Amino acid sequence: MRYIVTGCAGFIGSNFVDSLLAMGHNVIGIDNFSTGQEEFLETALDNPRFKLIETDLLDLRGLKRAMDGGEIVIHLAANADVRFGTDNPRKDLEQNTIATHNVLEAMRVNGIRKVAFSSTGSVYGEASVIPTPEDGPFPVQTSFYGASKAAGEGLISAYCEGFGFQAWIFRFVSVLGERYTHGHVFDFYKKLSDDPANLHVLGNGHQKKSYIYVQDCVDAILLAMEKSSDRVNIFNLGYPGYIEVNDSIEYICNGLSLNPRLKYEGGERGWIGDNPFIYLDVSKIQNLGWKPKTSIKEAIIKTLRWLQSNEWVFEARK
Amino acid sequence: MRYIVTGCAGFIGSNFVDSLLAMGHNVIGIDNFSTGQEEFLETALDNPRFKLIETDLLDLRGLKRAMDGGEIVIHLAANADVRFGTDNPRKDLEQNTIATHNVLEAMRVNGIRKVAFSSTGSVYGEASVIPTPEDGPFPVQTSFYGASKAAGEGLISAYCEGFGFQAWIFRFVSVLGERYTHGHVFDFYKKLSDDPANLHVLGNGHQKKSYIYVQDCVDAILLAMEKSSDRVNIFNLGYPGYIEVNDSIEYICNGLSLNPRLKYEGGERGWIGDNPFIYLDVSKIQNLGWKPKTSIKEAIIKTLRWLQSNEWVFEARK
Repeated sequence: MRYIVTGCAGFIGSNFVDSLLAMGHNVIGIDNFSTGQEEFLETALDNPRFKLIETDLLDLRGLKRAMDGGEIVIHLAANADVRFGTDNPRKDLEQNTIATHNVLEAMRVNGIRKVAFSSTGSVYGEASVIPTPEDGPFPVQTSFYGASKAAGEGLISAYCEGFGFQAWIFRFVSVLGERYTHGHVFDFYKKLSDDPANLHVLGNGHQKKSYIYVQDCVDAILLAMEKSSDRVNIFNLGYPGYIEVNDSIEYICNGLSLNPRLKYEGGERGWIGDNPFIYLDVSKIQNLGWKPKTSIKEAIIKTLRWLQSNEWVFEARK
Repeated sequence: MRYIVTGCAGFIGSNFVDSLLAMGHNVIGIDNFSTGQEEFLETALDNPRFKLIETDLLDLRGLKRAMDGGEIVIHLAANADVRFGTDNPRKDLEQNTIATHNVLEAMRVNGIRKVAFSSTGSVYGEASVIPTPEDGPFPVQTSFYGASKAAGEGLISAYCEGFGFQAWIFRFVSVLGERYTHGHVFDFYKKLSDDPANLHVLGNGHQKKSYIYVQDCVDAILLAMEKSSDRVNIFNLGYPGYIEVNDSIEYICNGLSLNPRLKYEGGERGWIGDNPFIYLDVSKIQNLGWKPKTSIKEAIIKTLRWLQSNEWVFEARK
């Protein structure tokens, strides 16, 4: 198959590209390199079945040209950091909602009708049902990130109904693993590099988080697209379990053989729009036969080891 | 109070303006007159407490200036016709989602923190629970209109969480009454004017619809804003009952003393994205003391009489 991967130079995107190439597929990768890293595509760029196109999803004309010849779109490009919504509320709208509209329009003019989409567990806002199932109560959005992704889901579903598209929508928890470039392990590692004796923690450390390892995430998406064939297929994607931020700190500090003084800031929530507990009911994807191979602890350690071997990303992500 | 009404020259907007002025409030009305009619503001324009500003919500700078001095925003401007989403998928995105973002940004820079929003029962897609409550299962969008309004809701809720806004979101069924300029009574009346002997009906006539009279709608919004004070207040707004399109045809034909031959087209649904049955559970707004004063049949007759006295709208809406 000829896949198109948006955000191909990003964390999940580049891992996805490598998996598709390893399976023998052809891949057109699209990235604007606003946060993507060409280094993540080192292996892919050596592969004749990979074609890289640098364009911005907000450039609809460029996008239409880029998608020519594709058969399935894996739409992963996004403004992925939930924390900075209030700094620039338009950014999530543009990069997650309008960009998704453009991807769908470019698909339509190119006759491409299958799309997978990286949504987020943040679309549940402050879920009243935990673990949260896909069809839990109609949520009230609490973050610009969640709102922009929920809007993207809505657009995709409308294209399915209006234009006969078929979609697989995945509501992720946070993802960890190789090429991870933002989030709490990144932040803690960086802070500890700067000051191994002290660690400032956003929130009280008791925020529960359910992380998933990137390869488990890629496997789940590919499995769902193979086994689930409704018009709109929606799946939660997370680890069937959770840890507290404090557990994570322990794994990281042990992994680095450090024993910093911890200082907590900000009360129950780390930031405006932070959700104290995103924990998804993943029985729907499990019922397709998916099982994560990597525990949360292992995922954190793998992430840590990768960061240790790739300290350049701290410069690249300044 | 100093209210700002977007879409002030539209059907619901102009009725809302008249009610606010009658209550003694000051009103800044905003409209781009793409579908609004200056005739609808005849009474308002004679009132010194009314100020009309012609600007487009997509012009953020103009909007920021227009909102200067307002205290509460009633955001009714929208692309309101659910039927033509597939003709131009970008229109709903721009006029219902991006425009709503701009309204929120203009509020933010002007220090305005209260907003009412006309959403739609279409956000429930094909509801699995009927009558549909506000917190029914997380819906899958089926129309560009519904998706764009759901996205608007999400943005508003995120501004409430992120910037301390307070919002009242109303999910309407179709509204009828004076100054009504699109929808099935409009279409049927126009078709029967052109050819009193035949009537082509989109769908099989058994589509169930729950219409609400415009003044009942305005009253409900004002009541909810007075009595409900959560950060995000979401209300269904519809008649606690429904009719079939065939009933409506009967009321209209009797009202016009006509007996046309009926021809049905298009099966169960009138158009792509049409929902065979939007029927909302309105107990939440009823529990605040709201009760519609006008039945669906009366609302249809009032609409018909208004159209008969205002045939100019058929020219204006070509």
